[in-house]
Amino acid sequence: MSDIEITQTHKVHGGTLSFVRHASAATGGQMAFSIFVPEGEGPFATFYWLSGLTCTANNFTEKAGAYKKAAELKLIVVAPDTSPRGEGVANDEAYDLGQGAGFYVDATQSPWTPHFRMETYIVSDLIAAVEGNFPADPARRGISGHSMGGHGALTLAMNHAHLFRSVSAFAPISSPTRCPWGQKALGAYLGSDHSAWERHDASLLMAGGAARPFDTVLVDQGLADPFLDTQLMPNLLEQAATAGGAGLTVRYQDGYDHSYYFIQSFIDDHLAFHAERLARA
Amino acid sequence: MSDIEITQTHKVHGGTLSFVRHASAATGGQMAFSIFVPEGEGPFATFYWLSGLTCTANNFTEKAGAYKKAAELKLIVVAPDTSPRGEGVANDEAYDLGQGAGFYVDATQSPWTPHFRMETYIVSDLIAAVEGNFPADPARRGISGHSMGGHGALTLAMNHAHLFRSVSAFAPISSPTRCPWGQKALGAYLGSDHSAWERHDASLLMAGGAARPFDTVLVDQGLADPFLDTQLMPNLLEQAATAGGAGLTVRYQDGYDHSYYFIQSFIDDHLAFHAERLARA
Repeated sequence: MSDIEITQTHKVHGGTLSFVRHASAATGGQMAFSIFVPEGEGPFATFYWLSGLTCTANNFTEKAGAYKKAAELKLIVVAPDTSPRGEGVANDEAYDLGQGAGFYVDATQSPWTPHFRMETYIVSDLIAAVEGNFPADPARRGISGHSMGGHGALTLAMNHAHLFRSVSAFAPISSPTRCPWGQKALGAYLGSDHSAWERHDASLLMAGGAARPFDTVLVDQGLADPFLDTQLMPNLLEQAATAGGAGLTVRYQDGYDHSYYFIQSFIDDHLAFHAERLARA
Repeated sequence: MSDIEITQTHKVHGGTLSFVRHASAATGGQMAFSIFVPEGEGPFATFYWLSGLTCTANNFTEKAGAYKKAAELKLIVVAPDTSPRGEGVANDEAYDLGQGAGFYVDATQSPWTPHFRMETYIVSDLIAAVEGNFPADPARRGISGHSMGGHGALTLAMNHAHLFRSVSAFAPISSPTRCPWGQKALGAYLGSDHSAWERHDASLLMAGGAARPFDTVLVDQGLADPFLDTQLMPNLLEQAATAGGAGLTVRYQDGYDHSYYFIQSFIDDHLAFHAERLARA
């Protein structure tokens, strides 16, 4: 059983957008996500979107402009929160650690262990809540995300390739073991033993062949993104794809930055990329 | 001269979105608007969007999903703030009066007179700032808006028909002289003499023939809008169109509410409606 509470609904592009709260065993508390379900009977293929640092479920929901194309393609679109929140949940004053910055890993270090288990939350509790309550086809899931959420999409897809049939990312943190955001978060959540970090690094996973279940991985990266060289480093992903025999397409987009204006400009391409792969038998 | 300060820019759908601040003689202070300019040389037709109660320039900019279609149609899109703001500007604790609730009129009553002159701001200072600094064609302007901004679009278009060639609205306050929001605002800004209210009532204007310069006025109204019967009353606009010989199309949309999810669902239709009329010689 997977009980949910729908706190708000809106009709949009012929379908229904719901804001959902539900109890998660993984995070030991209430979690929030939004879900768009297109008009019709289903079951529908589902596009999971993982957001970046500081985001809640609302940023993508309000700003990505994804639902017109999702309605056309008959895709469910799910956008979860980026961390556990609320009373008793650890936090940090920095924007890049703690609430709003779960990094899609299961923490093993104090004070994060009891609630910060976002990997298990996404691959277990979120999927169960979606598929137990909405007309989502368990055989057709795609995953994408932005920045920290691009890291999440790539690593969750490669570590749980049986769950997802398509994967893409916008401006992902391509190698968290080699950038300040990633080193800080992985150190805090997983401790100083770097061997525990490796399975959360998309480039290391890809170099080891973990992307081979996917025919192609699509990445869009803005060339005016201020984090490109210091935090995101998609060149490491490209090197890893060569080493690991992965199909990877990185599209460098001239003039685009790190904002949702970049995302809204290319989200339709990603939705079509996923829909095409999720339509295959 | 019309000096502006661009505080932020983002590339989006091939064009450029700028956030602008500029001094307004009408409101006696700094005003803010966003402007999307499509790729290419121009001059471009311009779509002015007036927002509703509590909004700033950001709501439409972030949530309407208008720029993909605007880029295709080669339309500039301008979204101004809904009132003067800042130090020395009068305000009220209510959400429906004062800052965020300018109602697109020039106030004649204390304490609103020195700054709340939103009619003159839009038709004079905003247009001058746009056309003095961006490749906007002065001969091709359309205007639309939502709720209080739908009222603004309809009344400004009819009172300044020489300035605008196309007009539409989402869930407009159709007759502010006959609904609580309008009576409160017009009373506060214009005083108790109701004869001063009449030229700010879209239904009264339309009944008097003021919409005749426009071949058609397009209105979308959600049937799940909680303000439909008490504040918006598009039936009064329909009666006025018959009385005043106006071309009016009110589309009642089943299941849609008053939010930006409603607006994003039909904004492309409105952009196409304006683009078609603004393309005519």
